[in-house]
Amino acid sequence: MGLGISPATAYDRAITIFSPDGRIYQVEYAFESVRRGWTTLGVKGREGAVVVVEKRKISPLIDDKAVQKVFKIDKHIGASFAGIASDGRVLVDYARQVALLHRFYYDERITVEYLAKQVCDIKQAYTQHAGVRPFGVAIIFVGVDDKGPQLYMTEPSGRYLSYYAVAIGEKSSSATEFLEKNYKYDISIHDTIKLGILTIANIIEGKVSHENIEAGYIDREKQEFRIMTPEEIDKYLEELRSEGKIKE
Amino acid sequence: MGLGISPATAYDRAITIFSPDGRIYQVEYAFESVRRGWTTLGVKGREGAVVVVEKRKISPLIDDKAVQKVFKIDKHIGASFAGIASDGRVLVDYARQVALLHRFYYDERITVEYLAKQVCDIKQAYTQHAGVRPFGVAIIFVGVDDKGPQLYMTEPSGRYLSYYAVAIGEKSSSATEFLEKNYKYDISIHDTIKLGILTIANIIEGKVSHENIEAGYIDREKQEFRIMTPEEIDKYLEELRSEGKIKE
Amino acid sequence: MGLGISPATAYDRAITIFSPDGRIYQVEYAFESVRRGWTTLGVKGREGAVVVVEKRKISPLIDDKAVQKVFKIDKHIGASFAGIASDGRVLVDYARQVALLHRFYYDERITVEYLAKQVCDIKQAYTQHAGVRPFGVAIIFVGVDDKGPQLYMTEPSGRYLSYYAVAIGEKSSSATEFLEKNYKYDISIHDTIKLGILTIANIIEGKVSHENIEAGYIDREKQEFRIMTPEEIDKYLEELRSEGKIKE
Amino acid sequence: MGLGISPATAYDRAITIFSPDGRIYQVEYAFESVRRGWTTLGVKGREGAVVVVEKRKISPLIDDKAVQKVFKIDKHIGASFAGIASDGRVLVDYARQVALLHRFYYDERITVEYLAKQVCDIKQAYTQHAGVRPFGVAIIFVGVDDKGPQLYMTEPSGRYLSYYAVAIGEKSSSATEFLEKNYKYDISIHDTIKLGILTIANIIEGKVSHENIEAGYIDREKQEFRIMTPEEIDKYLEELRSEGKIKE
Amino acid sequence: MGLGISPATAYDRAITIFSPDGRIYQVEYAFESVRRGWTTLGVKGREGAVVVVEKRKISPLIDDKAVQKVFKIDKHIGASFAGIASDGRVLVDYARQVALLHRFYYDERITVEYLAKQVCDIKQAYTQHAGVRPFGVAIIFVGVDDKGPQLYMTEPSGRYLSYYAVAIGEKSSSATEFLEKNYKYDISIHDTIKLGILTIANIIEGKVSHENIEAGYIDREKQEFRIMTPEEIDKYLEELRSEGKIKE
Amino acid sequence: MGLGISPATAYDRAITIFSPDGRIYQVEYAFESVRRGWTTLGVKGREGAVVVVEKRKISPLIDDKAVQKVFKIDKHIGASFAGIASDGRVLVDYARQVALLHRFYYDERITVEYLAKQVCDIKQAYTQHAGVRPFGVAIIFVGVDDKGPQLYMTEPSGRYLSYYAVAIGEKSSSATEFLEKNYKYDISIHDTIKLGILTIANIIEGKVSHENIEAGYIDREKQEFRIMTPEEIDKYLEELRSEGKIKE
Amino acid sequence: MGLGISPATAYDRAITIFSPDGRIYQVEYAFESVRRGWTTLGVKGREGAVVVVEKRKISPLIDDKAVQKVFKIDKHIGASFAGIASDGRVLVDYARQVALLHRFYYDERITVEYLAKQVCDIKQAYTQHAGVRPFGVAIIFVGVDDKGPQLYMTEPSGRYLSYYAVAIGEKSSSATEFLEKNYKYDISIHDTIKLGILTIANIIEGKVSHENIEAGYIDREKQEFRIMTPEEIDKYLEELRSEGKIKE
Repeated sequence: MGLGISPATAYDRAITIFSPDGRIYQVEYAFESVRRGWTTLGVKGREGAVVVVEKRKISPLIDDKAVQKVFKIDKHIGASFAGIASDGRVLVDYARQVALLHRFYYDERITVEYLAKQVCDIKQAYTQHAGVRPFGVAIIFVGVDDKGPQLYMTEPSGRYLSYYAVAIGEKSSSATEFLEKNYKYDISIHDTIKLGILTIANIIEGKVSHENIEAGYIDREKQEFRIMTPEEIDKYLEELRSEGKIKE
Repeated sequence: MGLGISPATAYDRAITIFSPDGRIYQVEYAFESVRRGWTTLGVKGREGAVVVVEKRKISPLIDDKAVQKVFKIDKHIGASFAGIASDGRVLVDYARQVALLHRFYYDERITVEYLAKQVCDIKQAYTQHAGVRPFGVAIIFVGVDDKGPQLYMTEPSGRYLSYYAVAIGEKSSSATEFLEKNYKYDISIHDTIKLGILTIANIIEGKVSHENIEAGYIDREKQEFRIMTPEEIDKYLEELRSEGKIKE
Repeated sequence: MGLGISPATAYDRAITIFSPDGRIYQVEYAFESVRRGWTTLGVKGREGAVVVVEKRKISPLIDDKAVQKVFKIDKHIGASFAGIASDGRVLVDYARQVALLHRFYYDERITVEYLAKQVCDIKQAYTQHAGVRPFGVAIIFVGVDDKGPQLYMTEPSGRYLSYYAVAIGEKSSSATEFLEKNYKYDISIHDTIKLGILTIANIIEGKVSHENIEAGYIDREKQEFRIMTPEEIDKYLEELRSEGKIKE
Repeated sequence: MGLGISPATAYDRAITIFSPDGRIYQVEYAFESVRRGWTTLGVKGREGAVVVVEKRKISPLIDDKAVQKVFKIDKHIGASFAGIASDGRVLVDYARQVALLHRFYYDERITVEYLAKQVCDIKQAYTQHAGVRPFGVAIIFVGVDDKGPQLYMTEPSGRYLSYYAVAIGEKSSSATEFLEKNYKYDISIHDTIKLGILTIANIIEGKVSHENIEAGYIDREKQEFRIMTPEEIDKYLEELRSEGKIKE
Repeated sequence: MGLGISPATAYDRAITIFSPDGRIYQVEYAFESVRRGWTTLGVKGREGAVVVVEKRKISPLIDDKAVQKVFKIDKHIGASFAGIASDGRVLVDYARQVALLHRFYYDERITVEYLAKQVCDIKQAYTQHAGVRPFGVAIIFVGVDDKGPQLYMTEPSGRYLSYYAVAIGEKSSSATEFLEKNYKYDISIHDTIKLGILTIANIIEGKVSHENIEAGYIDREKQEFRIMTPEEIDKYLEELRSEGKIKE
Repeated sequence: MGLGISPATAYDRAITIFSPDGRIYQVEYAFESVRRGWTTLGVKGREGAVVVVEKRKISPLIDDKAVQKVFKIDKHIGASFAGIASDGRVLVDYARQVALLHRFYYDERITVEYLAKQVCDIKQAYTQHAGVRPFGVAIIFVGVDDKGPQLYMTEPSGRYLSYYAVAIGEKSSSATEFLEKNYKYDISIHDTIKLGILTIANIIEGKVSHENIEAGYIDREKQEFRIMTPEEIDKYLEELRSEGKIKE
Repeated sequence: MGLGISPATAYDRAITIFSPDGRIYQVEYAFESVRRGWTTLGVKGREGAVVVVEKRKISPLIDDKAVQKVFKIDKHIGASFAGIASDGRVLVDYARQVALLHRFYYDERITVEYLAKQVCDIKQAYTQHAGVRPFGVAIIFVGVDDKGPQLYMTEPSGRYLSYYAVAIGEKSSSATEFLEKNYKYDISIHDTIKLGILTIANIIEGKVSHENIEAGYIDREKQEFRIMTPEEIDKYLEELRSEGKIKE
């Protein structure tokens, strides 16, 4: 090894090992994949929960209608993720199977936490065994179950936490800062969605519209996760513009 | 390691690991295989979709009649690829099986997206497990299903996106640039094919003819993917020449 | 290897090997993960045992209600851990299964020691075989069985020991020092819990409340592990404040 | 690594990885094995196809009668190869099994292309998985099936192409050059064989005879691959000499 | 490799290989783990055998009552070990199973040698196969079988030897020296135990009591291994003190 | 890597890889094992075939009666080898099983070529897969089958060739040179054996006798391989001495 | 690699590879383990065979009665070894099973050569496959079977040879030298044993007695291997002393 390579490099190449200070670099690098991803957030309120995703136009030739950044996992659970797209897709599929099998075996809907836990069991295993790499993706699950509205974020390490609001991806710092200042639990579902959309709108550069925002929410009442239509998103944006909260 | 080797090299040799900035170099290098391939493109319009491929004459002794760059996957789906030829062939075979089994198990034709997804599940797995390398190939699928004309491009990482038009391979930049300027959705199938052929014709050096272009298309009406005959291709080229769009 | 890398580095990268002085560095590094964790302690007295955990507020947006640092393993056993969160969760799940299967096969509750031993058998195996890394977590088990109140701490190496009181995690040194000075066995369960909470309170920076302390205990009489409510914790803190043992 | 080793070396040792420019060096090196082999060629004409092989006398003590460089695969298909002898033999055996099983399962003779494809599927797999090396051999298949005379060459990468004429091995460049100048499709089987033999004769140093040429052909009429006798070869050489095409 | 690393290092990293002088470094390093362990000894006499272990107080908070350094393997066999605690525990468990299964299959008690042999078969296997490390532990087995009192010590290499007296662990040199000077075979069980306790007492720094000594013995007459109570140990120490053999 | 190590070394350590010039060094090094072996040869004539082996006296204490360098494989096939003794023995055993199973399954004797091919299939596999090394041995098979006398030599690479006469091992160059000058096909079995023995006698240093020559032959008439007695060998040597072909 | 490391080191670390000169270093290093072992020898005569072993007193506390250096394998076969003790024990066990199963399956005693061969098949396999190391032990088998007295020595490489007399271990050179001068085949079993004991006695430093010699023999008449008692050994030593062959 030549000059200029930091001592850390000795520990970050073999997946299943610890560094002398007790860290597993591969897991931390996997989190970098999340940090490089498009900004995604979830907000939970008294009346429901929402996920909102920043969508960038990579190319005018991409057919956005068929590109999905918000996923329905089960009737009562939705998700979005930041990180490596294909890793995310594979885990979203896995979550759908877990939820489906739960209904099949126990004849009841899965709780959001239990779903997050099972996805994280897979993630943890991929950090401890050789021959695989960790999943380079963090997933936000929102839903409503018997304990009310739920919002979980699962990390590449296999850790998951419950949040009132959480942002991941490239601009998660400023989104989180904004959420910390403006978050309220005890508001209507309409206001919860509005907060989520406003937060993403704030970190988007240039003109904001349904073209660069995707969202989904679940209402405590109806208990069904819905992916929002472009029209719905634009309506929220209009409302926010009319209130002067986002510039024209 | 001596001088002049960039720090990146420390992370790009073992397949299943992340670099400190959260990238997986092997997957990015696999994409280089795609970038070294012959230019291939797909265009989707209101009335159908087309794939067009640049064919270079490696040797006058090659029997082009038996060399295929455009593939029929199922009655309603076609494909072409750029990258490592043998990797592409193996995945095209896999796609055919997937489509066939879908008919067999569900007694219905597979949607283009679901086909792309299943091919990408294999691709993703080859980026996460040790003992294999990623597939060095990107595949374009075109087809018509219940949602209308479809165009998907699958990447070595296992990501797939829906496109209006997409170009991959060595001259994909100039092809993409041309497509961005000239693309229209709401045109006849004839014009969609014409746009695809014109784009490839533009990036070919020297005389353009059926000898260096291969193409296939699917008409929304007939819902059957057809590989174009040399005569059909020449007819389009003639038309384009008569309109002065390509030089003699 | 360049300058400034100590000779030790030659032995700490491959998991299943000894260094010339008979140490297994990977296991020692795994213990560093524990030392980086939040402080956790257990105290055992004549009338029962308690685990108390320091909870830091990473973000005001985390929903602490759903974040668990103290776990019920079986009716008569509880646990908490310090180290890698996802590793800890996986082993807590494993402990629950072990306890459940013990009831199922032998129709009796498992002893705390036997539970610790079985968790440690897994831990030891992960230090001796290639292709896996050790678990980066130390778990404290408390419980009551036929031999009375029990307190065990399991190390990443797979060693476990019985303690009167034990602290692990970032501030375990000062917590241990405090416990060594103040520990008494022959006190009421109330005083045992009070000692555990006071010890954690002492190492917490800033205002102490149920927001940064989580605890669970088991009473020799009732033989059932209970996770304490925020109110109960605050009541103990009040009592400690009124006695002048912790500053306002 | 010392002086004078090019940066490439960092990527060519582990079989299943890409270099930063998207190449797989091990596959390219396997092709070098082919380039080091004895020159072998195939020619396809209107009336049939032929393979001709240069045979060098390694030792006068070798019993050439039992040394085979041209192989019958099935009644209607023959083959020859250049590269590692034992790799070639193993794949020739495999091709024979494939052809035999095809007759057994489908009660029809295999097409030459499908045979080439199946051999190439094995070859491709050996370029993508760890623990094996690619096959260091290129095989030429000639035959006649329902589409007429066929000539395929399979590469170590698992790619195969259809040719009018193709030469592989040490002197393939000058053989190819000669073929490009003299190839005609629309000639008799006699002239096709003659062209093949003349091409090999041209690249042989010293006296040419059946001792350093081996050949086999298939006639479109008879549809059966025949290995030529030394007498037949000498007769062609005589004819070529009498025409002044090869020196005495 | 930089300066100051001895040539040996080239051979000690991969477990299953020999150095040029025919040594297996990993096995020798595993023995270092034993040399780092607490001192443990066994003494065999005409009337029985004893194991005595030095117990250090790591922390006043450890509950020694539940910490075991002397183990009953079967009715007629006991054991103690020096080295990695978790490795030792796993092998003690294994020995118990071996002894139990022997009774089950053959309806007779296992001989001490055969038990040592079976434990050593596992140990040897862990020195010859890749993917595992040797066991870092030496075990002393004492017992009485049809051949009389037995004392075996098993090494990390898988070698075992029969001893009259043996000491392992950190202060084994001075313990062995003492034993060599004072050992007699033809003495009572009382005197055999006394010799064992005296030897450990001699190497303990500071005040000696049941708090830093653990022991177990088997009487040829009764043929049952007994772990000594703290009172019994103190009685022996008292006797030794009264004889002036150990200082107050 | 320091000075003076040739660039080749970068490619010869991992068994299953190619060097940039398309060679597999491990296979070539395995052939060095053959070159270091004792000289062994085979000669085939019109009336039969013979193998003759040089036997060196390593120690006067070796019991040559029980040391075998010429092996009977089946009634009609014999063999000898040069290279690693234990590798040779294992392959000779394998050849015997192959021949036996052939009789068992097909109720006919195996041809010599088919036997050589099957041994070479094993050899080839050991050059292409990781986790094993090539066999360091070349085997000469002689026999008589329906095509007459046979002589095959199998190389470590898995290649085999038919020979009139072949020599392997340390002095194979001078033995081959001698054979090339003196070989005749159309001679009696007596003269074939005589040529083989003379060739070996020529390369032996010091006094030649049955003590340093071992041989076996098969007569076309009798079709049974016979290992020659010391007396038979001495008789041939006598004849050769009386003819002045070997010095006293 | 730094200074002073010979070029050889590049090839001796991976077990299953050849060096450029066709050697397998790991096997040669395993033989070093044998050369480091205690001297062991075997002598075969007209009337029987003997193994004699040098026994060193490592510690006065070792109970030699239970330490075995000469092993009975079957009624008619004995053995001893030099090298890694645990490897030797494992192979001795294996030999016992082989002999036992032979009786079980074929209802006859195994020949000594066939036993040696089977042990060597295992040894050879451990030199050719990755993930294991060769056995670091050479075993001498003596016995009597239908061909008379037998003496075989098996090497770490898996080669075995028949000997009249053979010595292995640390002082094998001088022992071999002595045997070469004094060996006779046509002597009584008494004299064969005497030669074996004298040879070992000669290489022992200091006073020779049953304490540093162990031996076993088999008489052609009785056909049963017997381990000699200390008394028997001392009687031979007495006889040798009285003849002035060994010093007092």
